[in-house]
Amino acid sequence: MLRTHTCGELRPEHVGLTVTLCGWVQRTRDKGGISWVDLRDRYGLTQLTLEEGVEAEEMRAAARELGREFVVQVTGKVAERYSKNDKMPTGGIEIRVEKLEVLNPAKLPPFLIEDETDGGDDLRMKYRYLDLRRSPVRQNLMLRHRVAQATRRFLDGQKFIEVETPVLIKSTPEGARDFVVPSRMNPGEFYALPQSPQTFKQLLMVSGFDRYFQIVKCFRDEDLRADRQPEFTQIDCEMAFVEQEDILNTFEALVQYLFKEVKDLEIGQLPRMTYADAMRYYGNDKPDTRFEMKFVELNDVVKGQGFPVFDNAGLVVGINAHNSAMYTRKQLDELTEFVKRPQIGATGLVYARVEQDGSVKSSVDKFYSQEALQQWKAAFNAQPGDLLLILAGEPNKTRKALSELRLEMGQRMGLRDKNTFSALWVVDFPLLEFIEEEGRYFAMHHPFTSPKPEDIALLDSPDTIGEVRANAYDMVINGVEVGGGSIRIHDRAVQARMFELLGFSAEEAQAQFGFLLDAFEYGAPPHGGIAFGFDRLCSLFGGADSIRDFIAFPKNNSGRDVMIDSPSPISEAQLKELSIATAVVGK
Amino acid sequence: MLRTHTCGELRPEHVGLTVTLCGWVQRTRDKGGISWVDLRDRYGLTQLTLEEGVEAEEMRAAARELGREFVVQVTGKVAERYSKNDKMPTGGIEIRVEKLEVLNPAKLPPFLIEDETDGGDDLRMKYRYLDLRRSPVRQNLMLRHRVAQATRRFLDGQKFIEVETPVLIKSTPEGARDFVVPSRMNPGEFYALPQSPQTFKQLLMVSGFDRYFQIVKCFRDEDLRADRQPEFTQIDCEMAFVEQEDILNTFEALVQYLFKEVKDLEIGQLPRMTYADAMRYYGNDKPDTRFEMKFVELNDVVKGQGFPVFDNAGLVVGINAHNSAMYTRKQLDELTEFVKRPQIGATGLVYARVEQDGSVKSSVDKFYSQEALQQWKAAFNAQPGDLLLILAGEPNKTRKALSELRLEMGQRMGLRDKNTFSALWVVDFPLLEFIEEEGRYFAMHHPFTSPKPEDIALLDSPDTIGEVRANAYDMVINGVEVGGGSIRIHDRAVQARMFELLGFSAEEAQAQFGFLLDAFEYGAPPHGGIAFGFDRLCSLFGGADSIRDFIAFPKNNSGRDVMIDSPSPISEAQLKELSIATAVVGK
Repeated sequence: MLRTHTCGELRPEHVGLTVTLCGWVQRTRDKGGISWVDLRDRYGLTQLTLEEGVEAEEMRAAARELGREFVVQVTGKVAERYSKNDKMPTGGIEIRVEKLEVLNPAKLPPFLIEDETDGGDDLRMKYRYLDLRRSPVRQNLMLRHRVAQATRRFLDGQKFIEVETPVLIKSTPEGARDFVVPSRMNPGEFYALPQSPQTFKQLLMVSGFDRYFQIVKCFRDEDLRADRQPEFTQIDCEMAFVEQEDILNTFEALVQYLFKEVKDLEIGQLPRMTYADAMRYYGNDKPDTRFEMKFVELNDVVKGQGFPVFDNAGLVVGINAHNSAMYTRKQLDELTEFVKRPQIGATGLVYARVEQDGSVKSSVDKFYSQEALQQWKAAFNAQPGDLLLILAGEPNKTRKALSELRLEMGQRMGLRDKNTFSALWVVDFPLLEFIEEEGRYFAMHHPFTSPKPEDIALLDSPDTIGEVRANAYDMVINGVEVGGGSIRIHDRAVQARMFELLGFSAEEAQAQFGFLLDAFEYGAPPHGGIAFGFDRLCSLFGGADSIRDFIAFPKNNSGRDVMIDSPSPISEAQLKELSIATAVVGK
Repeated sequence: MLRTHTCGELRPEHVGLTVTLCGWVQRTRDKGGISWVDLRDRYGLTQLTLEEGVEAEEMRAAARELGREFVVQVTGKVAERYSKNDKMPTGGIEIRVEKLEVLNPAKLPPFLIEDETDGGDDLRMKYRYLDLRRSPVRQNLMLRHRVAQATRRFLDGQKFIEVETPVLIKSTPEGARDFVVPSRMNPGEFYALPQSPQTFKQLLMVSGFDRYFQIVKCFRDEDLRADRQPEFTQIDCEMAFVEQEDILNTFEALVQYLFKEVKDLEIGQLPRMTYADAMRYYGNDKPDTRFEMKFVELNDVVKGQGFPVFDNAGLVVGINAHNSAMYTRKQLDELTEFVKRPQIGATGLVYARVEQDGSVKSSVDKFYSQEALQQWKAAFNAQPGDLLLILAGEPNKTRKALSELRLEMGQRMGLRDKNTFSALWVVDFPLLEFIEEEGRYFAMHHPFTSPKPEDIALLDSPDTIGEVRANAYDMVINGVEVGGGSIRIHDRAVQARMFELLGFSAEEAQAQFGFLLDAFEYGAPPHGGIAFGFDRLCSLFGGADSIRDFIAFPKNNSGRDVMIDSPSPISEAQLKELSIATAVVGK
């Protein structure tokens, strides 16, 4: 090896030992005849020292020539430091340099390689290999490694088998847009990259694999947002001979294990909330339950008293922001502006303060008597100092808007600490949702999700079809859907009926999913599973909002890797071999 | 859960327990008023018993209705068997059935779900989910899981970090043909699927990750052979601040660990052989060293004695097949036919037997005296009963042909037992090889491989360029190259020179690999690595020749997945969105 030790492991007990280290020059200082060099590697920082009259003059000269990020190999004796640095694990020692070799010099990096850098997003993406040298980014990827290893350890211990499913599969019309791959050997035909290994893991259950998992890349050709990437990673799992309860218990245990292993936290048992309750109390199927602030419905309390906005609304609903009555007019105006943003879409905000004397002061005092306002107070179970925030309008839209306001208030009130974790299961999702623009039902989870057996009869009437609940579940942590899954259909007739409801003709269903329908006729066991968004889970463990810094080489919002400059044109010869031509409009 | 136990775990100690099992009906029998059902799951087989006058008649009727591969749930008491079956782990017990429910019936499978099946390749590929039910195939995938987990355990313990590199990267001209992916958001541009994460893992070294690994899918759009798949899996590894010796030691330890964990075998230290010796003694850079039978060069012994074939040959070389002197004329004719096959290309075979009295009898007796033949015998160190097989011709071609003959003889002599493992390192590969058809040098390993420092000067003259050795190495087990790697170039100037030697203009090199060349200027450490063919390694552990049965859902030789019928045409709308058109000749 080119080194005897790493830059993170020497301690006072090593004093007197001659060692060789390799690493990057983090910084150099020179003062009063002494030169110091901080040498960095993945494991830490170690201080090198060269003193006038002690270390050889040529070596001192060489040390002074070192620039930031030079790669060096250094040999010397471990010595006790004069002034110890308790903040560094190696702060008790220094290396008195006997030999110094530059393994590779470095140009001045385009941004500072420090925990806090001066590099903008674009520059750091272009020189991603330099950004990855910064400790916070490296720590993220090391965290990701630990989460992956712990996941595998847990699932392997539970007799799950990791099976690799194919990356070159078949394009299907349901779901998001596919990335496709032209086949050279089959001209005019294309593979697709998987959006998930869904059908393959179900086939593995039909094969009797019983417990399957895979940490696997998936692909969606969608317009990108900050927290979406065209390629992303799932922890994909499936079990046979189980009911919903078994899956919830198994994967609750996985997540408890991960929190314990990675964060040393006991998150305890996960509460369960129905989709209906999540929508009613949080206006959101992924409620952030780090804080309460549940919705209070007010139709019975506020209607019929002459305030047209409330009287004409389908739903009047509010939240109680405890101890926020001191909010200034300016702050309240900000909140009003917030809810009126187009993406939130409320028409206005009604607020009411509970004063210290117990009286209530609202923004609609001219419509409501103090007596009426006291009923509001009772409905919210509000105390002096509380601030009530109320929206009104079409029920679904209003709940959605209030959910945003609730999250905003949680943020303002410091109730969304990244180091606090609140996990729960949301269960009993609707099987189907009607998409107005498309004029038909879509699977809320996916077309392979089983309806609850007791609701199957409701599928037969157009009036009740939307009421059918699925054996589907999401795991939500801190308002983020980290995983979701369902018990699957394992009966050919039910699956065929499902495709029919989703607008497939029998021929289309057979052409696209015939292999699965056929498989269900050769002895398919009851089965179900779950998939976790691995990037998202890691960013949550890391206390970050974006997944990008938990991915070694992410793409930007145009799907480009600016470091390698991809995608890029390919040669005419390649196109010809693949039997395709580019057809760019305007070219 | 739908079951209390699996079909593999009940033993006499469970007698008296009421249990519920789920599984597939393997077979049913009915004799003398007793019905038996063998129930199968991933874990084993358990016998169910229903006896006239003991179990209820309706249940006995239901059991008689069960077909092969029906999925059933059964509840009953564990009982001791009358006639125990020592060959089955559950052979000491049976289940006396109290409740029997068909969870899903099954059509008659298109082939037998037994260890030995009557299904042909095509049928088994189409119904892969049924073939995966067969124990030998399932065992292969479970072996694969164990190898993967053990690999991760070992490397994690050695401080390697698993980092996921991107699947959507950039097409590069060097190497095999790329699969490409049209970009919707960047019309006219394409991603490529990685043939390996080579440049990314090198960038991770530049980033200071120090020790990286990944078990990762790679893609090559090549014409397929039995042991090639368009998507395959590598154990991909890289280390910084190391020399070749460190890498050999680290990964020798990995493979020793895998043999111990997976096969419970100690394979001991791996011998090292130079490429030159491998070619000289085995005619092959991946020698099968389960047996000796080294090449013996005979130019000095056989030339100048009037046999034109030998006199005119660049090389006369042979092997000694011990104790094979009893080979009949017919067998020797077979061997002659074997070496004359076009893909082997020898013009003929000369043989000589050492008789019991020590005399030598050859096929070219009219050219060689007994005295001369005794010199052959001495050269081969041959004993009575040995058979000498000799080829002559152009040296490289002759070595290659003799290598095939040696392997054939090893096979015939039973020296290539699949349960015997002989591993070695082949080192000191040439850096470049001249490909006549292309009229230029190609990197023997890849363009990032470092020349041996002591050979760098040889790069400067066209006469010596082919003699430059690389810091490159292959791990070979039983004649199979299971892994290969090299110390990489980490100096911009050397890398640029390498691209130049490979025919890249400076502009092309910068356009394709500028990010790597740039990275080398910002502090790149010395580094190197290795990649193992994971499918191949698993098939080797499993004692199989083909990798196909170690892949859950393989493709056929036309790159098709016949089960899901992929690749397939995509819609005009999809093509339009991707700004491409199909351009199939003749359509």
